[in-house]
Amino acid sequence: MSNYQRFVLTDLTQSDLWVPELTLDSRAWPGRFPAPWKITKRTLRGGRRDGIDLIEVDNGILTFQILPTRGMGIWRGQFREMPLGWQAPVHGPVHPQYVNLLDRNGLGWLDGFDEWLVRCGLSSMGPPGIDPKTKEYLTLHGRIANQPAHYVEIRIHLDPPFELQVIGHVQETMLFAHDWLLKSTFTTTPGSSRLVVHDEIENRSMRTAELSLLYHINWGPPILGEGSRLLAPVQTMMPKDARAAEGLATWDLFDAPTPGFAEQVYFCELIADAGGQTLAMLQDPSQSRAAVLRWSKVELPYFILWKNTASMTEGYVTGLEPALQLPNFRASERDAGRLPMLQPGQSYRTTLAIELVDQMENVDDIRQEIASMGMPEP
Amino acid sequence: MSNYQRFVLTDLTQSDLWVPELTLDSRAWPGRFPAPWKITKRTLRGGRRDGIDLIEVDNGILTFQILPTRGMGIWRGQFREMPLGWQAPVHGPVHPQYVNLLDRNGLGWLDGFDEWLVRCGLSSMGPPGIDPKTKEYLTLHGRIANQPAHYVEIRIHLDPPFELQVIGHVQETMLFAHDWLLKSTFTTTPGSSRLVVHDEIENRSMRTAELSLLYHINWGPPILGEGSRLLAPVQTMMPKDARAAEGLATWDLFDAPTPGFAEQVYFCELIADAGGQTLAMLQDPSQSRAAVLRWSKVELPYFILWKNTASMTEGYVTGLEPALQLPNFRASERDAGRLPMLQPGQSYRTTLAIELVDQMENVDDIRQEIASMGMPEP
Amino acid sequence: MSNYQRFVLTDLTQSDLWVPELTLDSRAWPGRFPAPWKITKRTLRGGRRDGIDLIEVDNGILTFQILPTRGMGIWRGQFREMPLGWQAPVHGPVHPQYVNLLDRNGLGWLDGFDEWLVRCGLSSMGPPGIDPKTKEYLTLHGRIANQPAHYVEIRIHLDPPFELQVIGHVQETMLFAHDWLLKSTFTTTPGSSRLVVHDEIENRSMRTAELSLLYHINWGPPILGEGSRLLAPVQTMMPKDARAAEGLATWDLFDAPTPGFAEQVYFCELIADAGGQTLAMLQDPSQSRAAVLRWSKVELPYFILWKNTASMTEGYVTGLEPALQLPNFRASERDAGRLPMLQPGQSYRTTLAIELVDQMENVDDIRQEIASMGMPEP
Repeated sequence: MSNYQRFVLTDLTQSDLWVPELTLDSRAWPGRFPAPWKITKRTLRGGRRDGIDLIEVDNGILTFQILPTRGMGIWRGQFREMPLGWQAPVHGPVHPQYVNLLDRNGLGWLDGFDEWLVRCGLSSMGPPGIDPKTKEYLTLHGRIANQPAHYVEIRIHLDPPFELQVIGHVQETMLFAHDWLLKSTFTTTPGSSRLVVHDEIENRSMRTAELSLLYHINWGPPILGEGSRLLAPVQTMMPKDARAAEGLATWDLFDAPTPGFAEQVYFCELIADAGGQTLAMLQDPSQSRAAVLRWSKVELPYFILWKNTASMTEGYVTGLEPALQLPNFRASERDAGRLPMLQPGQSYRTTLAIELVDQMENVDDIRQEIASMGMPEP
Repeated sequence: MSNYQRFVLTDLTQSDLWVPELTLDSRAWPGRFPAPWKITKRTLRGGRRDGIDLIEVDNGILTFQILPTRGMGIWRGQFREMPLGWQAPVHGPVHPQYVNLLDRNGLGWLDGFDEWLVRCGLSSMGPPGIDPKTKEYLTLHGRIANQPAHYVEIRIHLDPPFELQVIGHVQETMLFAHDWLLKSTFTTTPGSSRLVVHDEIENRSMRTAELSLLYHINWGPPILGEGSRLLAPVQTMMPKDARAAEGLATWDLFDAPTPGFAEQVYFCELIADAGGQTLAMLQDPSQSRAAVLRWSKVELPYFILWKNTASMTEGYVTGLEPALQLPNFRASERDAGRLPMLQPGQSYRTTLAIELVDQMENVDDIRQEIASMGMPEP
Repeated sequence: MSNYQRFVLTDLTQSDLWVPELTLDSRAWPGRFPAPWKITKRTLRGGRRDGIDLIEVDNGILTFQILPTRGMGIWRGQFREMPLGWQAPVHGPVHPQYVNLLDRNGLGWLDGFDEWLVRCGLSSMGPPGIDPKTKEYLTLHGRIANQPAHYVEIRIHLDPPFELQVIGHVQETMLFAHDWLLKSTFTTTPGSSRLVVHDEIENRSMRTAELSLLYHINWGPPILGEGSRLLAPVQTMMPKDARAAEGLATWDLFDAPTPGFAEQVYFCELIADAGGQTLAMLQDPSQSRAAVLRWSKVELPYFILWKNTASMTEGYVTGLEPALQLPNFRASERDAGRLPMLQPGQSYRTTLAIELVDQMENVDDIRQEIASMGMPEP
């Protein structure tokens, strides 16, 4: 059985527990861990971030900042000296109190969008509009990113591989409608260049429910730059619209910041290995650094590339987005048969790894790994 | 003149006073009170409750938790070992910052709904829609439940019957439209099984205004269970719709939690005594415990029963709802002549008692009291 | 070069700085200043104001309370014994979390309106509606007043004239739409009866953008009273509508509080001096006290008078409003050619002085100054 210490930061289910500040440091367990690490929790104050809980995990070389108040998204990170995430026009993170999803003709979600990793879903995602079946007015990318966690826990595993875990539970519930429970676990280990996001999403309602889910994982400089490239074992790729079709020839290449650049979106299916695993890599212009995502195509069958290489002030960013379906309007995805139905009590599980690479030979290795997936087996 | 000590917790009218924490304990007045009691005030933190002020009154055997931040509603209570209120799907209470009344096609009020006692009103209640007279888009059950108190005071009366009072003032005001001032007083006494809610609602605007008001008082287990029963001196009863008509034969009886149960609503007028007083009782399956509401039919002429005996996770609950009118769309209530007009400066007063009973003979007594009200006087 | 000390209260751009409380007092620099002054910063708690940052500047005789959380508006002020601002029906100030701009058919802005000085803009102002050009649903008076500052700084100048400055930066940004940066500076000096508001508004987006801007500066008693009068070098004046036309003969005079008074609005162009400067004065009933606004007609070509002399509880108030255009629906102002287009990176600058006068001879002087502006130059 796992030997770990547990630190509950928030528990609003049975108790009324909320910890304002916490610091955990490997130095408190002398000689126990192979590398130093540190985890801190605090509440941000001022401006649009006022009241946001932030948990920063620093495993020694990789740092990431989890936002329980924003649906267990990740604000930003850092790998050695390299910042992870992007710089949105807004000075985020943005507390849900400053996000009105109904605003801007249903595009209000954009007002809170500045994370490195943000989930779209769970009852709907994609563009706003009235669902002809349910008559609901759906807003862009759904609600989960603006729901606060009601339960947050840190687990420090005391035996190899010494996992450092942050667990958060988030509800997306509407009386008389749906009731989703997201249990999210972020895992890394001391000195690792890898972060694993594991989600369990339970339909707690008493009716079958359609699940929408997309991981919007966003990269700006330095990984994104002129000459950056997406590599993935692409099986099929389809530009989302005429605007995306314009860039078809260079869909996997990135330009320098381009003022006024209008976004381009590409819908992909990737090749998976025998175990169902697939991956995508964003390599930097020098081909010596890269971000790699790994996940199961069984769990998340689609992959979307969002290119938004506008100017730095507008937001120079690309999104690598493993997803359960395409980010079209929900009714279209329903018609296309891409909305999984979860029975009452049923859970959907996903596991997603984010790896950072900063050695050219390692980037080469992954490039070869991707290339080999397109090959017929010997 | 009354001899009491006053503790002002919030005053945003003249001063800028807000007390973060307070504990009042009968032990600070040795020998003064016939039974021990305690009142505490704190601010809840984390999740959807972040920033909610909560005042807990424990009179020795009856406890109730007032939410100044949610329009002086009552979150939950406890009578001896018996919890009062219900378990909504959401982990509440829910701060108004997480409630967008416009959401869900005007049903956003439901996102904050998890209280034992919540007021619907004051400018409107009932379903959403555009009022044809005023052209306003009305949202479900109005605004008062999501308005914070700007004045809160505790009064400890030092002479018999040693009343313990919490007073809160809440505004529901719109420049160029309406301006309601709710002055609410909760009163209990040490060792009492009774809580009295007294409201004064003033039309502070310079125009006559239509007042809407319903007390949504909600009960889950253990008072609600399979075999629980509503008892009241019913004069007339009308199912709200076809769904309610289905359950007509057993409208006053409650089933076990039933997954997917669709709500049933019954509109009643009750018989009042010579003084205008009436009552309703919800007795538990064993008929040994009950909750009793007492109020003036002159003040609140209607009584609504809301049956929502869905599964525990969906919310197994019934609402006993004394009201100034029926919770139909405001325009319908206007047409039916059930919207009282308050003149500028005029106030409307209501008094509502909640009593808890946990002795079978006492339940019997109330059952007889109710039965006798249907009888012609000798 | 200017010799000043800087105190950063909020910086969410590079750092994550937010100062909960601060007091600066001239006594900390013994002998340095010609008159005593004090600046304090705190966060308001309770009711609708919960979480609002407030900076109070007291220059010895003039006090004003800046609200970084409400777009660097000014809540209230005081000049010697005279309160500045007005008493709205709501007990403000109102935190943006309690303002839903979409509410009340797009009039939700009114729910937060209780300041002495509030800006309308920046992407739009005026009444709500769907802009036929952009298809956006615009809400009353735009967003800037409900955006929190992400950067706040106090500057204490240590040489004559010993300026006391509060600087705040506020964003009004929408991904894929506009990106405004307001840099606001409030300046006064010890013992002065004058407050200067200097704004720089930068179009940080990569597209040309239409700027909307109006300074809604609001006065209640004692400057406003029965017999108060507006004086300004009026070139043209036009009642906004039939209701305003009713009061044309006495458009510059004010009545006593009148229950149910419906607002009257007058659109003006004023005469400016050779340097482009103009002014407006609201004199009190005794003609011994007055509020004077001075600004550049080049920067703010229009002046709007808002008369709302309703009862005290409804809000007895008048607004003196220098503006970049008229507060009509944005499409009308566009058609009229009154929406300045700012290029990417371009800034718009305004400077506005508020002076308080409490000597009859000084009121006379300004009256003569205004009268002389209507005269042809010799």
